[in-house]
Amino acid sequence: MSISRIIKRRRSTRSFLNKPVGINKIRLILDSGRWAPSGLNNQPWRFVVIKNKNIKEKISQFTKYSRVIKQADCLILVFLDKKNSYNLLKDTQAIGACIENMLLCALDLGISSCWLGEILNRKAKVNKSLKISLRYDLMAAVVLGYSPKKTKSNRLALDKLILKELL
Amino acid sequence: MSISRIIKRRRSTRSFLNKPVGINKIRLILDSGRWAPSGLNNQPWRFVVIKNKNIKEKISQFTKYSRVIKQADCLILVFLDKKNSYNLLKDTQAIGACIENMLLCALDLGISSCWLGEILNRKAKVNKSLKISLRYDLMAAVVLGYSPKKTKSNRLALDKLILKELL
Repeated sequence: MSISRIIKRRRSTRSFLNKPVGINKIRLILDSGRWAPSGLNNQPWRFVVIKNKNIKEKISQFTKYSRVIKQADCLILVFLDKKNSYNLLKDTQAIGACIENMLLCALDLGISSCWLGEILNRKAKVNKSLKISLRYDLMAAVVLGYSPKKTKSNRLALDKLILKELL
Repeated sequence: MSISRIIKRRRSTRSFLNKPVGINKIRLILDSGRWAPSGLNNQPWRFVVIKNKNIKEKISQFTKYSRVIKQADCLILVFLDKKNSYNLLKDTQAIGACIENMLLCALDLGISSCWLGEILNRKAKVNKSLKISLRYDLMAAVVLGYSPKKTKSNRLALDKLILKELL
């Protein structure tokens, strides 16, 4: 698939089949995240990969989207390493780029995904539950799995997004 | 090219040939940005597209990377529409995803790019110079052009980025 087709076909998927995602595919997805751009190439992203059902269930308590996390085969938690941060705005953007790379790579591998942010409301509990230092600040959760459904989405037209075109 | 190959081949390019980027290609690139995911699908990104040499030169004064902006054929300024913002952290991540989509799409079209953040130090001057309301908060500049050079880059190994793997 061409990149623009992958970009336009990516969807947030909230229901998954009971079918595992191979660890090699998960590593390819993380590897795409790893190659995102960041300011000063500081690579502030860090990952926790959870396939273990008990641990996934424990983490799922910390969001109202617990069903999505429980149903998905794999949960990737994305953290900002505060010791490697140089500018919060730019690091946050870089982490957005890293996550988008992972979602696009997943789709190219036939894997559906959802980027979840609501869990940030209880991010300290996530760290505590996983015994992860607060040096690592939770930025997002990404779930991965196989999905039977194709969902629709829409976007504002380009002319609503372009404030000025100075040619 | 496969998505993971595009992701790994993308580089920050700081010198460009004197060769224009067609407006149709620029629109394809913006269109890829448009399809990024955002929290509640709020699509907080807005764009200013500058190919006009005089205006590009005027904006280039506001960063120490003025040479890069002057040399590149096209400058895209990416703003956060504060009236469409619901959570600054999530909107900032979404804008990172939007920019990454544009960089990847550009590469797939044979166009080199650079994501510039230093200009944010004088972002109010950019808005003033373009007569753009402060409702729109400058988030990044992206330059586009053709480049003769292939640059190298590197990343931390994946095992340095995975804090835990709970399988």
